Amino acid sequence: MNIIEKRSGIAFTIKKGDKLKVTDISGQQVSDLVIFNAHDKSEALSAGKTMDFEESILITQRNYLWSNRGNKLMKILEDTNGRNDILLAPCSPETFAIMYDDIPEGQPSCLGNLAANLEPFGISRDEIPTAFNIFMNVQFTKDGQLSVDTPTSHAGDYVLLEALEDLIVGLTACSAPDSNGGSFKTIGYEIL
Amino acid sequence: MNIIEKRSGIAFTIKKGDKLKVTDISGQQVSDLVIFNAHDKSEALSAGKTMDFEESILITQRNYLWSNRGNKLMKILEDTNGRNDILLAPCSPETFAIMYDDIPEGQPSCLGNLAANLEPFGISRDEIPTAFNIFMNVQFTKDGQLSVDTPTSHAGDYVLLEALEDLIVGLTACSAPDSNGGSFKTIGYEIL
Repeated sequence: MNIIEKRSGIAFTIKKGDKLKVTDISGQQVSDLVIFNAHDKSEALSAGKTMDFEESILITQRNYLWSNRGNKLMKILEDTNGRNDILLAPCSPETFAIMYDDIPEGQPSCLGNLAANLEPFGISRDEIPTAFNIFMNVQFTKDGQLSVDTPTSHAGDYVLLEALEDLIVGLTACSAPDSNGGSFKTIGYEIL
Repeated sequence: MNIIEKRSGIAFTIKKGDKLKVTDISGQQVSDLVIFNAHDKSEALSAGKTMDFEESILITQRNYLWSNRGNKLMKILEDTNGRNDILLAPCSPETFAIMYDDIPEGQPSCLGNLAANLEPFGISRDEIPTAFNIFMNVQFTKDGQLSVDTPTSHAGDYVLLEALEDLIVGLTACSAPDSNGGSFKTIGYEIL
């Protein structure tokens, strides 16, 4: 298993038919996943298309991740925890400034980690879409109020996704304290 | 009042401090709003940042519309109906093919109308983000199931927004039957 160190990220390509397994090694950690068509990076994950076509806010096994062009990019084959988020954009320096009182400037963020790792693929920070936030536990009330709670995932929980196109993948071990109960941890991934 | 004809769209620029009033002329119609920084179109409305920083799925008066860079682009000053959506991407030919049985090919869509009207501003179809869907009535259950219901808006209901930056604005009279109870209608707008 490959390890994404705490508060960091990685980017790589996978081929159509490859399977990507993302594992919460220690439990209660979040991994932000963004995907782009490897042959045309202007086609990217769209949270808005995914929720529309899957008719759900909560995306789990048997759901697809859709692109801004209305194509299926990945299928979720297995999800041992079953709670993920696709509402909220990756944490960023602005997230820390606006939503937290106690994070010093210059701390790593998912958006920063995705941008740094996707830059060699010609993808800019502005082009990074709202992510599929694996293991992220965002609760919502009937009147729409959102809260970011500690993940329900335990050590060894994983999500297995199949690539339906050749893809550029960005993946993080999340840097936002609210997303992981305040304890930053590693994330594992394998390409099968 | 300017009129957006049924199943069409428009794009224009407004200045920081301008107010944009979007009116449901006949009732039960939806208007998709997308916004870009007029001085750098790579900065655009982000549904994911807006829901994150407003801590809500339901965006109404006193909420802000935020950009992918974590800046406030607009403030919602008034909202006489009070139900809007920011979950779902603009309807597109793919929406009609995937979600409907009875829409012939070649019908107008919000994505198509936004793309055609934003193209003179140098904004491509792929760059159009998930919209702020004014008057759109998307209901969600506790377990995340989504349904697109007829708007609760009545003739004369409006949303008044203040521009916090110089903006390029795209705006539609929605083309998706589910969003407007199957009766396509006009939308009115004024720049105040």
